[in-house]
Amino acid sequence: MKYGRTYNFSAGPATMPEPVLEEIRDEMMNYRGSGMCVMEMSHRSKVFQQIVDEAEADLRELMQIPDNYKVLFIQGGATLQFAMIPMNLMKNGKAVYIETGAWSKKAIAEAKKYGEVIVAASSKDKNYSYIPDCSDLDIPEDTDYVYICENETIHGVTWPKLPNTKGHILVSDQSSMFLSKPCNVSDYGMIYGGVQKNIGPAGMAIVIIREDLIREDLDPKTPIYMMYKTHADNGSMYNTPNCWAIYVCGKVCK
Amino acid sequence: MKYGRTYNFSAGPATMPEPVLEEIRDEMMNYRGSGMCVMEMSHRSKVFQQIVDEAEADLRELMQIPDNYKVLFIQGGATLQFAMIPMNLMKNGKAVYIETGAWSKKAIAEAKKYGEVIVAASSKDKNYSYIPDCSDLDIPEDTDYVYICENETIHGVTWPKLPNTKGHILVSDQSSMFLSKPCNVSDYGMIYGGVQKNIGPAGMAIVIIREDLIREDLDPKTPIYMMYKTHADNGSMYNTPNCWAIYVCGKVCK
Repeated sequence: MKYGRTYNFSAGPATMPEPVLEEIRDEMMNYRGSGMCVMEMSHRSKVFQQIVDEAEADLRELMQIPDNYKVLFIQGGATLQFAMIPMNLMKNGKAVYIETGAWSKKAIAEAKKYGEVIVAASSKDKNYSYIPDCSDLDIPEDTDYVYICENETIHGVTWPKLPNTKGHILVSDQSSMFLSKPCNVSDYGMIYGGVQKNIGPAGMAIVIIREDLIREDLDPKTPIYMMYKTHADNGSMYNTPNCWAIYVCGKVCK
Repeated sequence: MKYGRTYNFSAGPATMPEPVLEEIRDEMMNYRGSGMCVMEMSHRSKVFQQIVDEAEADLRELMQIPDNYKVLFIQGGATLQFAMIPMNLMKNGKAVYIETGAWSKKAIAEAKKYGEVIVAASSKDKNYSYIPDCSDLDIPEDTDYVYICENETIHGVTWPKLPNTKGHILVSDQSSMFLSKPCNVSDYGMIYGGVQKNIGPAGMAIVIIREDLIREDLDPKTPIYMMYKTHADNGSMYNTPNCWAIYVCGKVCK
């Protein structure tokens, strides 16, 4: 293989396209005449604004993301999302989670800090080796959302078809499958994924969220960084974002 | 200038040493025979563990960090620290903050969500153009810590000498001055800084915290990512860290 590169089937940070790495290498000392590397740029500069705008536009085109969904670039990985989701989306303080492996378990443990978590289906009985039948779940009327991890890396299961949420909002952790197959964004209230599995370096999650789900009447103890509204109102630049990850993801999406 | 690079005196993400950028460029397609770029590596791999161990060791040597201080690599920048500090360090629910500009103001606003904030000194009267006299502050006995922003980029003031905390723990935001001058770590309970100002790409803060300040008896609603204990117990790798930033910072510190 060129450059002596290895094959890498890791479920963690994964192989990136060689032409993307070559371009990054070639732009390292001076990004397109800007006189600097992307790591050195102000996130408030025109040249970086163009990078973030293009990254978002290319992702929107690739996934055909409807206009009423926001695309947010947030640090802290899936782990921070495990808390941000209940903090932001639990309006009635109640959510349904489907337990299918290590990652949904972690999400459940974190969500329990913020409200009532109903585990409506689980594959724990057979060590998370299958996806339970979710065609007719018992979902209380005032449930705020139904949560799934759409691909569980540690236990190795993936959802062949989405659950019947009976009209409730579906929230999906797509970390290990983001952009790996066509996805109808309108089927979800929110999709998120750590970018390091498929489209960029570790250190950033992409959140795709329906605008009407972004609230501001949250628990007053919610950290400002953990409100989706903070990121949505500031084009993901309330504070300095992971500029490098946005730059790399933009290249992969192009 | 070589490569047509510009001079950059930005207070935001700042210039990096050219030899560091050249090394990163040369390691892009295959990091030291590993067969991959650092962006593609598992954070659980031996080769990456060596990168993070060396980055920490070199920083420890450079700053002469005592053994009873932990070095943590945390995503979310200073903005997440504004909330993490009171969440983790407010044991009695009370802290003293010194108001010297835009960044300490933001820290104060966030800390107020979690307890009583006493602004013991402020330079607001002259639009944050000076550092107030902090030689004899009125600090209640049960104050958990005294907080300063040691260099305020927006208002352009820096602390010529540290405040007299009267035996209380000093917490300092060194974001825009990290590693810019010698610093006696033992004078502080905690130092932190977003790395993008001096030693790396945006998307990571370095937290240097005295071990005995790391608690686990926190508000049960504290997100697991926002507990210093989570990061301290797992060598900053409870979840996938910003591997790229660790790699770059390590090079700059060497």
